[in-house]
Amino acid sequence: MTDIAQRNGVFHFEDLHVGQRFSSGTHALDEAQIKSFARQFDPQPFHVDDDQARDTLFGGLAASGWHTAAITMRLMVGGVPLAGGIIGAGGEINWPKPTRPGDVLHVESEIVEITPSRSRPDRGMVTVRSETLNQRGETVQVLTAKLIVPRRAEA
Amino acid sequence: MTDIAQRNGVFHFEDLHVGQRFSSGTHALDEAQIKSFARQFDPQPFHVDDDQARDTLFGGLAASGWHTAAITMRLMVGGVPLAGGIIGAGGEINWPKPTRPGDVLHVESEIVEITPSRSRPDRGMVTVRSETLNQRGETVQVLTAKLIVPRRAEA
Repeated sequence: MTDIAQRNGVFHFEDLHVGQRFSSGTHALDEAQIKSFARQFDPQPFHVDDDQARDTLFGGLAASGWHTAAITMRLMVGGVPLAGGIIGAGGEINWPKPTRPGDVLHVESEIVEITPSRSRPDRGMVTVRSETLNQRGETVQVLTAKLIVPRRAEA
Repeated sequence: MTDIAQRNGVFHFEDLHVGQRFSSGTHALDEAQIKSFARQFDPQPFHVDDDQARDTLFGGLAASGWHTAAITMRLMVGGVPLAGGIIGAGGEINWPKPTRPGDVLHVESEIVEITPSRSRPDRGMVTVRSETLNQRGETVQVLTAKLIVPRRAEA
């Protein structure tokens, strides 16, 4: 099955198995990106102002968690080649450590559950646990997402 | 307690109670915003290309779920005035319906759980359930987030 998937470049539902792993490329995050995202979506002192950030719980400038999530998505789009794309119904997200300027992020994903759809024989639900790590190997985000993955069309 | 909070403009941990509700302002989403966010963070056909989107599960252009999450954060920053800001440790997120070009979003938040910290007497954990709704009252996102909220400093 892996051979077929690799030949097509994408994985259908029936090509996937629990324990299967995917590694992403990297994304280098800098202060300008952190502030730009935060000004648009999360304009709080600890995400936009170095001086004010020092006196907060973060103790210095940190990326918005939603910025880390968005970068993770970008890395997964490049690193988890699912047929039909990466379509999430939802999931659980945690940020055990802040993401900082200068961090180089990558994502390690593992399939933890596979559930055929009862009502829709053309697809299934695949639960993927994705850890986003920085250049020191510290986990800055854990996302356990439920993805909708199509089956291969019948011949 | 609400009086004190309102006078200061922000709510500390001890000002909050289960069932307390907050309403946000609105955000009007258009096609340009959807494509701009998606090109940067979630470059998949159903988020960046109208024609290709029609033949996907979404049946037309839809915002990235992370875009909906980021807009929700922006609305919460303006609508949930917590002392110390909105600092999330993590949470659960679901997207029951797609967010579309032309949608006008707002967020309704409700406190569902309050947990004092055992190890840190200066703060506590507050669980907030936030529904993001479109102009037709349809829920496009449900986020149940665990927030860290400081107590008022001792006099």
